[in-house]
Amino acid sequence: MLDQIHLLAAVSVLGVLEQAYFSLQVIYARRTYGISPPKISGPPEFERVFRAQANCSEYFPIFLAVLWQAGLFFHQGLTAALGLLYLYSRYRYFVGYKASSSGRLAPMYFSAGVLWILIGLAAVGILHFLLFHYVGLNVLLFISL
Amino acid sequence: MLDQIHLLAAVSVLGVLEQAYFSLQVIYARRTYGISPPKISGPPEFERVFRAQANCSEYFPIFLAVLWQAGLFFHQGLTAALGLLYLYSRYRYFVGYKASSSGRLAPMYFSAGVLWILIGLAAVGILHFLLFHYVGLNVLLFISL
Amino acid sequence: MLDQIHLLAAVSVLGVLEQAYFSLQVIYARRTYGISPPKISGPPEFERVFRAQANCSEYFPIFLAVLWQAGLFFHQGLTAALGLLYLYSRYRYFVGYKASSSGRLAPMYFSAGVLWILIGLAAVGILHFLLFHYVGLNVLLFISL
Repeated sequence: MLDQIHLLAAVSVLGVLEQAYFSLQVIYARRTYGISPPKISGPPEFERVFRAQANCSEYFPIFLAVLWQAGLFFHQGLTAALGLLYLYSRYRYFVGYKASSSGRLAPMYFSAGVLWILIGLAAVGILHFLLFHYVGLNVLLFISL
Repeated sequence: MLDQIHLLAAVSVLGVLEQAYFSLQVIYARRTYGISPPKISGPPEFERVFRAQANCSEYFPIFLAVLWQAGLFFHQGLTAALGLLYLYSRYRYFVGYKASSSGRLAPMYFSAGVLWILIGLAAVGILHFLLFHYVGLNVLLFISL
Repeated sequence: MLDQIHLLAAVSVLGVLEQAYFSLQVIYARRTYGISPPKISGPPEFERVFRAQANCSEYFPIFLAVLWQAGLFFHQGLTAALGLLYLYSRYRYFVGYKASSSGRLAPMYFSAGVLWILIGLAAVGILHFLLFHYVGLNVLLFISL
């Protein structure tokens, strides 16, 4: 079983390390701008770092959910490669947002694009499985006729 | 293996699509009320949409965790049906909260009820497995005596 | 398959119950201090409970992700025990943060420590699998020479 998920597992752990990096950046920003918990408002420089981390955290379970469905039902290797691309674009998003509000936009659109591709792969893989499982229809064979 | 999880995978991807819809609603609300990131406060109309999305995001990993445990340890089909019901109640919650603070209450209680049922199914399924695995006790046989 | 994940599933469901407890505490705090949704600011006593819950929610998918990778690729029993320790430290964190901002620090560091151990176990387990799967290298045999 593990050989069907080891690349997904590796990308998931890399994603956790990235989230840990973002969380540490918020702690550093709290110190730099003197914003003690539970406060979450302050100068825009602090709020951008805080929101960048909050946004990445919010998307992390969504990313994991599609990563695993796409990897299990479509193709593990391709999915893991797209997963690495997503994590890289999230890093660019964080760094861009930290610098300026507009700096978040380009990597945000890029990461959303990668996520939509993963959603598409997962949907295609699951639909293909459902058609074969319940209707006995092998779409791949049908296409190759 | 995939035939034990394909319905859970399908509901998970539908849940991701729902979260994507909620996120887009926040982007539209930001434009409508002119609230640029990283700001998260504004008129109540904006804050309700923002909080509705935040609340759904917060519950999404909790929902996925119980959906998969209930589906794996109790019954996949029943669990997937309850999962669809949960996603529908979350949609009603979002629409209700967007309209008014009190409009979130009825679907909030309903979605919490569905979640508790899923938690119950997961707990029963796992307990049954643990009893059989470690004590050799088959509760289902015991009941049927 | 279920005997490789039943302890991870049990810890996951316990984690969900803990998150439900934290969410209820926020609802009680909203009533106590008269902070109606969508408002999220108020007296420090309320904001500490709100932020404690938000922080635990943010870390929950991260915790689940490493719990499952460590359990699948390293050792299920050890991982589940560390998972229980993490959930206990999160409870201490919540109670400590509710009392005072500084009360969150000791259990926060402890829970972060447990999380890093889980990340380490997951990384070691996955690396070991990758080396064996792609290079044919069994590190455990190599060590025992």
